[in-house]
Amino acid sequence: MQKHIHPKITLVGAGPGDAELITLKGIRALRSADVILYDALVNKELLEYAGENVPAVFVGKRAGNHELPQNQINELIVQSALTYGHVVRLKGGDSFVFGRGHEEMEYAAQHGIETSVVPGISSSIAVPELQHIPLTRRGVSESFWVLTGTTRAGELSADLHLAAQSNATAIVLMGLGKLAEIMSLYQQAGRGRLPVAVIQNGSLAGERIVVAEVDTITEIVQRENIGSPAIIVLGEVVRSHPAAQLRELVVAECN
Amino acid sequence: MQKHIHPKITLVGAGPGDAELITLKGIRALRSADVILYDALVNKELLEYAGENVPAVFVGKRAGNHELPQNQINELIVQSALTYGHVVRLKGGDSFVFGRGHEEMEYAAQHGIETSVVPGISSSIAVPELQHIPLTRRGVSESFWVLTGTTRAGELSADLHLAAQSNATAIVLMGLGKLAEIMSLYQQAGRGRLPVAVIQNGSLAGERIVVAEVDTITEIVQRENIGSPAIIVLGEVVRSHPAAQLRELVVAECN
Repeated sequence: MQKHIHPKITLVGAGPGDAELITLKGIRALRSADVILYDALVNKELLEYAGENVPAVFVGKRAGNHELPQNQINELIVQSALTYGHVVRLKGGDSFVFGRGHEEMEYAAQHGIETSVVPGISSSIAVPELQHIPLTRRGVSESFWVLTGTTRAGELSADLHLAAQSNATAIVLMGLGKLAEIMSLYQQAGRGRLPVAVIQNGSLAGERIVVAEVDTITEIVQRENIGSPAIIVLGEVVRSHPAAQLRELVVAECN
Repeated sequence: MQKHIHPKITLVGAGPGDAELITLKGIRALRSADVILYDALVNKELLEYAGENVPAVFVGKRAGNHELPQNQINELIVQSALTYGHVVRLKGGDSFVFGRGHEEMEYAAQHGIETSVVPGISSSIAVPELQHIPLTRRGVSESFWVLTGTTRAGELSADLHLAAQSNATAIVLMGLGKLAEIMSLYQQAGRGRLPVAVIQNGSLAGERIVVAEVDTITEIVQRENIGSPAIIVLGEVVRSHPAAQLRELVVAECN
């Protein structure tokens, strides 16, 4: 007897990398999945929650190849739901923070497929936090601003110009390739001495952090060979990092 | 034979309310707790993960009473660690987002107690997300800014003035009591027609949402008797909410 297919999609945030930083609700979704479509930056241990014989399809970047274009991912989601039933779309961090999760949900909904979303731990908050850097602190920072270094147009977002003039703690995702340009904006705003942290592989075994100031961080990041994925945190709260007490460059290997 | 006491504290984010929106790591911490100190806005179902006879102490607001002062909470954490061993400090949302979790950790560390932190799902991201409002969207919003309506000085944060002039999606926590003042800032910035959502009891059974514009939201929130806890979301991304397609007031009861 053939199984009755009830097509639906659940968008699940996988968290910043550590396999234990997924929610209970996310695990329940994985357990009831008929197929999983997952991105790069998702911890593959999470696929073990799926039932036996549940296919897990990688739709992120393959070595040496380009990412699947977004319209093909959208179509794959819909076709998978119609073929298998419950699609879990597993994305790194939270799927609504610079992911295109909302676009995927919208496309599926337009095709009559039931959609729901399970929030994930966003690296924008959790990665500084795991380094004991609070994004807000009474008397120091009353807000935080999450930005991207990589915009569709390939230029720095106008929001970054304003962030450099605000008192908000700024967290820049996907910004390592534009580090010098971003620091230049802060220097133009007269904030060369503002503390900055760059955290690579947050929450994972290879985690590394560099703590310095706007004026010095770019050179140090290059010298220490810090690579992606990395998060940039700018603001007085960075002084809360134990290593920031030192006046000098700090490079720490974590875990 | 007396149990050897190893004093330590784990700060755990309990998530926005739904008991399934805690991380696996958070649950593991609760299971190994010797005592739990929890705040208001924490879902009490989570206390069931603790072992038998593990005391759970409420340190938030009691009906008709003031909150325990922060210095007493700090002291209670340290004394609990010395008396019981592993203290789990359970806070709503994420403990580093407008919580005073970092101050508590710092105090404990100064008293020689080992500290660690388990990130939680922050309502700032998850509550709009559960309403299918993405905080960023290609071509619409390239960043999001999380602010508080309640500052130590009791006045509106200067950051809010700047947020009203930025293209960032703004998420204001603890701002319902200042809604009219916040909307006034946006009106002064010429943004009376910007869409706004106010979400009460996000992720819980009594969840309600109002979607309107800067010019109209305050009156509607009053008329519909929307109360705390509530989150304010300002930005063009609010148009992604299914109800925002209607030109008119929208009030939706959820779940």
